[in-house]
Amino acid sequence: MKKIINEPSQVVSEMVAGFVLAYPEYLEQLPETTAVIRHDKASMQGQVGLVSGGGSGHEPAHAGFVGPGMLSAAVCGQVFTSPTPDQIYEAIKASDTGHGVFLIIKNYSGDVMNFEMAKDLAELDGIDVRFVIVDDDIAVENSLYTQGRRGVAGTVLMHKLLGAAAAKGASLTELEQLAQAILPKLKTIGVALSAATVPEVGKPGFVLAEDEIEYGVGIHSEPGYRREKLRPAKELIAEMLGKLDEALVLTPTKKYALLINGMGATPLMEQYIVSHDAFLWLKEKQITPVFCKVGNYMTSLEMAGISLTLLELDDAKWLDYLNYPVATIAW
Amino acid sequence: MKKIINEPSQVVSEMVAGFVLAYPEYLEQLPETTAVIRHDKASMQGQVGLVSGGGSGHEPAHAGFVGPGMLSAAVCGQVFTSPTPDQIYEAIKASDTGHGVFLIIKNYSGDVMNFEMAKDLAELDGIDVRFVIVDDDIAVENSLYTQGRRGVAGTVLMHKLLGAAAAKGASLTELEQLAQAILPKLKTIGVALSAATVPEVGKPGFVLAEDEIEYGVGIHSEPGYRREKLRPAKELIAEMLGKLDEALVLTPTKKYALLINGMGATPLMEQYIVSHDAFLWLKEKQITPVFCKVGNYMTSLEMAGISLTLLELDDAKWLDYLNYPVATIAW
Repeated sequence: MKKIINEPSQVVSEMVAGFVLAYPEYLEQLPETTAVIRHDKASMQGQVGLVSGGGSGHEPAHAGFVGPGMLSAAVCGQVFTSPTPDQIYEAIKASDTGHGVFLIIKNYSGDVMNFEMAKDLAELDGIDVRFVIVDDDIAVENSLYTQGRRGVAGTVLMHKLLGAAAAKGASLTELEQLAQAILPKLKTIGVALSAATVPEVGKPGFVLAEDEIEYGVGIHSEPGYRREKLRPAKELIAEMLGKLDEALVLTPTKKYALLINGMGATPLMEQYIVSHDAFLWLKEKQITPVFCKVGNYMTSLEMAGISLTLLELDDAKWLDYLNYPVATIAW
Repeated sequence: MKKIINEPSQVVSEMVAGFVLAYPEYLEQLPETTAVIRHDKASMQGQVGLVSGGGSGHEPAHAGFVGPGMLSAAVCGQVFTSPTPDQIYEAIKASDTGHGVFLIIKNYSGDVMNFEMAKDLAELDGIDVRFVIVDDDIAVENSLYTQGRRGVAGTVLMHKLLGAAAAKGASLTELEQLAQAILPKLKTIGVALSAATVPEVGKPGFVLAEDEIEYGVGIHSEPGYRREKLRPAKELIAEMLGKLDEALVLTPTKKYALLINGMGATPLMEQYIVSHDAFLWLKEKQITPVFCKVGNYMTSLEMAGISLTLLELDDAKWLDYLNYPVATIAW
């Protein structure tokens, strides 16, 4: 294992301290937690709080998306491990300004359980808490840590849309309805060229041959649906977009947002080649995404690979939400 | 070589097409070149044009920094290869609004030669062109492709400061003076854990043992000054900041900006651990950077490693320039 770290057991606490030291204008650490909250707490007044989080190792998710127009707070668990309920509870309390708190949870059993326990704790304090469980990964049904489908890079678009709606004054009920409307329109699929190494484990989650890739891999090195020899980018993209088409039934009269997400170690050069191939493939279907982002948004430590997310913009407001200004480290 | 590409010879043209397809609101491609220019050309009126570029493989540099408040245009050469003079010349012509064009050149012999040839061509058209050669890398003197010191991640801060000054109406002469004032205050040093693989070469620029790192490495896999076993992050950072201290003579009464730059394959988690260690080391010297950025700004394809850049903010305006709003893909 070759990593620029100190003690493997301290990576998350040092990382969170590093966030706050580097970006005090955006983030504050909640005392005795590895959760971070918006620095400009005053401007959160009157808004529903928006909290996400999960295991660490997916940076910039989720701390990089904390700020005006996106999340109120993010809770950083140990690497690839759900944050504990008490930490999530502290983030909920700190994010509540009397209008309730909405949780964005990626669909992993540990996350779902711990966020729900935190919700129960907060409700004992009289805080109204609702949530959405994001399960955008179409690759496989049920996985190592998941019942149903995994929550992956599409979660970042969920942050963005709900963050804009919350900033514009949406109520807790409105956020819940929006999240439920987004869910069926938000689909992701990924491929990996190599796996991540959890610092406290010290070796990669899986090993691929020099010429091999895995389709449909998860962001914690969970298995995908096929291993085979690496093919040219445009063939990978055709397979991935073909699967997204099956899931969403792409239609020229509809509008789409596209997220091309690097898994951590994939150069931006490759991500932009994927962008080119994806736009050409979609053009054949008479579709030009009206919104696109390319970069490392939901990573898996040093995993090489990419994911493609399509969001069908079912409501004209959703594009406004995507374009709504934010002040975060990473959007 | 495991990369998500199509033909190795086409990576740059496909990448540039991918930029423009993904971000038409920021970038346009200059016809028959691999150069990109700001989409909002009208708002460039009245300003000195600002052009940078160099070999590709350092993304998001430089195309990711094209936009209001930063560069007017960026010229993308082949991978780790200077762009040709005719491409740079086209970018200069397209960036000129009658107030001249300023070039930001990283100090590599090929870049210096080709940007200077392009300057001569543009001057035949009556365009006033000035330039700065950035040589912020303190690791080694003279390198594979360089007389003097290499230009590396500090170049991005040069883009930012000059971009803000240009947007605020600085003249060509004022930009030249500002660039010359910044140069001696801008210092960078890097370490690598692994090398980049140029697609058309197909194998890494160097090979390190499983437990080995190289200090002072360049962004094209040029040699550094020492190879040794990987040490804990805080020891690496102490060595790197110690060298920056020697170069800049860090002083508690002065103000500094810090750029922690990932080389391409280094997880953000590690970069934030470095942030923590760097702030602690600097605090011992009674220094707290007043501006910090952490992320992949000047990469070297899939090289794992980081660089640290310190900029002594010799003039209060420089901090305003760093904080001046921009609209780019990657700042």
